[in-house]
Amino acid sequence: MPTSALALDAERLLEQIRSLGAIGTDGVVGGRTRIALTNDEKAGRDQIVQWMHELQLDVQIDRIGNIFGILHASTDENGKHPLMIGSHIDTVRNAGALDGCYGVLSGLAVVRAYRAAGTRPDRSIVVGAFTNEEGVRYQPDMMGSLVYAGGLPIRAALDTIGADGTRLGDELERIGYAGNLEPGAIVPREYLELHIEQGPILEAQGQLIGVVEDLQGISWQKITVHGTANHAGTTPTRLRHDAGYVAAAVVAFLREEVVGAAPDTTLATTGSLRLEPDVINVIPRKATFTVDLRDPDEQRLQAAENCLANFLMEIAEREGVKIETERLVRFEPVVFDAGLADEIEASAKRLGFSYRRMTSGAGHDAQMIARIAPAAMIFVPSRAGISHNPREHTDDAQLVQGAQVLLDVVQRRL
Amino acid sequence: MPTSALALDAERLLEQIRSLGAIGTDGVVGGRTRIALTNDEKAGRDQIVQWMHELQLDVQIDRIGNIFGILHASTDENGKHPLMIGSHIDTVRNAGALDGCYGVLSGLAVVRAYRAAGTRPDRSIVVGAFTNEEGVRYQPDMMGSLVYAGGLPIRAALDTIGADGTRLGDELERIGYAGNLEPGAIVPREYLELHIEQGPILEAQGQLIGVVEDLQGISWQKITVHGTANHAGTTPTRLRHDAGYVAAAVVAFLREEVVGAAPDTTLATTGSLRLEPDVINVIPRKATFTVDLRDPDEQRLQAAENCLANFLMEIAEREGVKIETERLVRFEPVVFDAGLADEIEASAKRLGFSYRRMTSGAGHDAQMIARIAPAAMIFVPSRAGISHNPREHTDDAQLVQGAQVLLDVVQRRL
Repeated sequence: MPTSALALDAERLLEQIRSLGAIGTDGVVGGRTRIALTNDEKAGRDQIVQWMHELQLDVQIDRIGNIFGILHASTDENGKHPLMIGSHIDTVRNAGALDGCYGVLSGLAVVRAYRAAGTRPDRSIVVGAFTNEEGVRYQPDMMGSLVYAGGLPIRAALDTIGADGTRLGDELERIGYAGNLEPGAIVPREYLELHIEQGPILEAQGQLIGVVEDLQGISWQKITVHGTANHAGTTPTRLRHDAGYVAAAVVAFLREEVVGAAPDTTLATTGSLRLEPDVINVIPRKATFTVDLRDPDEQRLQAAENCLANFLMEIAEREGVKIETERLVRFEPVVFDAGLADEIEASAKRLGFSYRRMTSGAGHDAQMIARIAPAAMIFVPSRAGISHNPREHTDDAQLVQGAQVLLDVVQRRL
Repeated sequence: MPTSALALDAERLLEQIRSLGAIGTDGVVGGRTRIALTNDEKAGRDQIVQWMHELQLDVQIDRIGNIFGILHASTDENGKHPLMIGSHIDTVRNAGALDGCYGVLSGLAVVRAYRAAGTRPDRSIVVGAFTNEEGVRYQPDMMGSLVYAGGLPIRAALDTIGADGTRLGDELERIGYAGNLEPGAIVPREYLELHIEQGPILEAQGQLIGVVEDLQGISWQKITVHGTANHAGTTPTRLRHDAGYVAAAVVAFLREEVVGAAPDTTLATTGSLRLEPDVINVIPRKATFTVDLRDPDEQRLQAAENCLANFLMEIAEREGVKIETERLVRFEPVVFDAGLADEIEASAKRLGFSYRRMTSGAGHDAQMIARIAPAAMIFVPSRAGISHNPREHTDDAQLVQGAQVLLDVVQRRL
């Protein structure tokens, strides 16, 4: 089957991105909220399933609610593992229209190209939409792909209690997406995920295609400093056990020393910080803050964690406070499949698109599926690096070009 | 009139402290809440007025609700200015029983000693309870004494809108304490205030009486850092404008450099700090925090303010953020009357009590009245320096001994 035989329907892809983006619109201009397993997300699922049926795909739902649309191969599939294209359609609160949805709908666009040409691939193509990638309501995030890859027992996942007190399994039943397929039942030969970068690098460097060869390791901790509340005017500095100062010193240390030790690869962020009692003239009794450390290299990530741990011991001793740490999330860096990355690079080159090899800073379903199959990702630029925000934007032409790379890679693998 | 003629009724003083402390008890064990001009504070006021009437004092209420109980002199008062003893009976939320109340009730104990002896002083004694010292509901704090000393026009004070949306003047009318006396009408010859230390110094040094010779200057600012929210995993450090990091660096700088420059006198506290959007994997867009700077020396206090201002400019430039500062409170240091302080020291010595000269770290009504009359304060120890807390505690014996010093000083001045 010659490459030229398959053409991407760019208009239909962009139209579906807009239609799906119109489901769950919220009060904020340009925003939508489809948090996993809510009514709005069910409406998004129903739309995806309808579009899969329009393409006459074999639609299967697994026990964690992952949706798969299968274009069966032209020949007997015995022993041939399918190619899987996937991402997710759940969103954060007040999200853009592209994060996740772009990857799922581009998968449908690839299948549509086969349908339009009236031809079938030699191996099946599976388009997957994984449950609860964002982890807004139920922790952990990337849950559907994690369960699928065998990293979390299905029972534990179904028993997860959400931030709103609901049980995930009950909500899955309620919206009608508690399927029968055993997670992991369809083992892909390879996995591809097309996604917006959600960072500023491609745009800043004027490049179109990100050939994602690895994904940063992520270390999330919650740190609680227990000091002593006291009067800000009457307590000499040497008698203070100021939980707020200790938290601030840790945050400054993270930037100045931990990131300072590997400024091009280690990232450290404190996104949340709260003081108690949070009163202007009372020395804080308690400070609670988060630390998000990332590095594509496991050894450097461990070095950052150790550097932080040593500083916590040192400052707890010096300031007479007690510090507790709780590990929230820990993923080792993922190295994607080199052969698949080469294939993506070759496609970008062939199509005449600028490209660069890069690291994914965010987590994606691809990192979970990488546990059970060779996987890689394709990025397109995010304007100003903005994501998880109604201002998330990628030019239409860039969206189409990214999907063309995906279609090209798929054809070369099948 | 020989000193020996006047005796303090220790039991009655302690009993009144307990009775007043039982008004407005809240849910927390040992705590009470009598925020200015609430129904519970009105109940406290009614109790004070009743006790003033029991002592047959001339009770007068001024337009800002300050309560004065006057023991008139034995002779014609023409041209003789009275001695004033004062403090406050409003509390913070979930307060101890001593802050403020101890000073007012000790004033009544002094008057009671005269009544018990059947004698009158040569000059009148005025016991004052000032409105809204704590400033919980209406800003600024120390409002009643500030208005009394001419530092805030009565109209502006009455028009103050509280945190709950109420107008102070309306609440004063509602509880029946909008009096007719013009604030400042009774000009004292001198002012004395007996108070718990609210700090750890007397206890730590094993001393009973604090001869308070000055009061720290106070500088309160609210600082807002405007950065750019972005994804914690995909934004390289050099492209970040992290409002949370900037806030943390400022808090660390305050302790390490500003306090470091004058560690024995300058105090710096960040009691409140909030991030937006306060999400683990989002670089903070905005940080809002408070800075409480104190020093007994105005020049050093200004040096601390300037040092902070310079750092804010430097870090705003370096991190590409915008920083706004808002001055919330600024009081210059107050030097109390040296003659009165000597008198307090002499009384402590005469009574055989250990004592030390010291600086008040907290603000008090005495600093306002010091604008219109010689003023000084007497401190007694606070266990573990704790105040604004149900665990606020001073031993009964220490409370009585502090009141004995007050009575001794009053007798020597009259």
